[in-house]
Amino acid sequence: MDLIIAKDILKANDQIAGANRARFDGNGVLGVNVMGSPGSGKTTLLERLAVDLDGKLRFAVIEGDLATSNDAERLERAGIQATQINTGGGCHLDANMVAKALERAELVSFDVVFIENVGNLVCPSSYQLGERRRVVLLSTPEGDDKVAKYPPMFTGIDALVITKADLHEYVEFDAGRVEKDARVLSPEVKVFNVCAKNGSGMTDFVSWLAAEHRRLKAMLARGAEAP
Amino acid sequence: MDLIIAKDILKANDQIAGANRARFDGNGVLGVNVMGSPGSGKTTLLERLAVDLDGKLRFAVIEGDLATSNDAERLERAGIQATQINTGGGCHLDANMVAKALERAELVSFDVVFIENVGNLVCPSSYQLGERRRVVLLSTPEGDDKVAKYPPMFTGIDALVITKADLHEYVEFDAGRVEKDARVLSPEVKVFNVCAKNGSGMTDFVSWLAAEHRRLKAMLARGAEAP
Repeated sequence: MDLIIAKDILKANDQIAGANRARFDGNGVLGVNVMGSPGSGKTTLLERLAVDLDGKLRFAVIEGDLATSNDAERLERAGIQATQINTGGGCHLDANMVAKALERAELVSFDVVFIENVGNLVCPSSYQLGERRRVVLLSTPEGDDKVAKYPPMFTGIDALVITKADLHEYVEFDAGRVEKDARVLSPEVKVFNVCAKNGSGMTDFVSWLAAEHRRLKAMLARGAEAP
Repeated sequence: MDLIIAKDILKANDQIAGANRARFDGNGVLGVNVMGSPGSGKTTLLERLAVDLDGKLRFAVIEGDLATSNDAERLERAGIQATQINTGGGCHLDANMVAKALERAELVSFDVVFIENVGNLVCPSSYQLGERRRVVLLSTPEGDDKVAKYPPMFTGIDALVITKADLHEYVEFDAGRVEKDARVLSPEVKVFNVCAKNGSGMTDFVSWLAAEHRRLKAMLARGAEAP
């Protein structure tokens, strides 16, 4: 009985996610669901993109948190248009929350909308939001065992961004193990090693985002179903 | 309707938690629910306690993870008796899982049983497991904004252990802000700054555990309801 309810909730969520996706597509916007543990560096990465995507891609952020608007305020100080969603204790964003945020968004002004999910390496993975791409962050101080221990989060993702590379020399972290474990769950995943604080590794990540946006636009121009 | 079901689940959980608590009490065992983000250092702290509690308190661990028995194996290599619970994707432990683990445990052999919850700064906070004390870990690289952003986890807790103190000099982290935010949610909370890797700050945490165990024993001896 509970399982049926859970399934119905997920089914209803996926229908709204489909509508969100159509809305992104209709405006040529790449929706990117950004997930990771608390403190994995999601907001810091987005702040950094204000510099690194400048003149390349126009982007906005939908920001999810249990409480506070701290992160949206941080992003706005970096010159990024941000919409804060407070889940009121909820452990993940859902498609309906994103739909509400999109009601006010002038999507046509942007190439990419990043949806920064609640910091949580478990629950957000079950909920489609309407994104075309899923990106998961894993910080070096979290440890190289996390892909094996939290497999649903790393299943079916497009990019894995290993963050806080500047701390690599102070902690034990085998990036090879992380990449190997991730490829079992997401064979095509792109893996990036970045430090958003000093900018190292950002060029590759920015190139990937630009390529994914071009790919979406080309597919939409052909009237094909985007991947 | 959904809310009623959620309430019923929590009520059923709390009843089983009460039975777990009675079982701990009946054996003079202090049950400690250990929570925190993925990679906050929960298992490393427990490994370290094998050294620092040696000859002071006898303890065992109930270890919760979505998948793998990596952490229980780590603890056993440190000489700690560990029981692994796999939640099969579930984002938190519940009282029933702990009850199953306790069926096999020879509780009378231990002074403390640590229940290491799934790495998650949201969901575990809603579920009583039968613990007498709640401990939350927050690692310095996670950032000093996390108490404000994840308030339910830091509400009604007994100890906040700030971990990875050895990384403090490489990251921005205002321990005063963390303590101040935590006291709003848990006025009596004890705050510890530790590095389980080099052992700094462990003495205070060990003294607190020993005092809490003595307090429980004294109350049980008087036949009083433990706090």
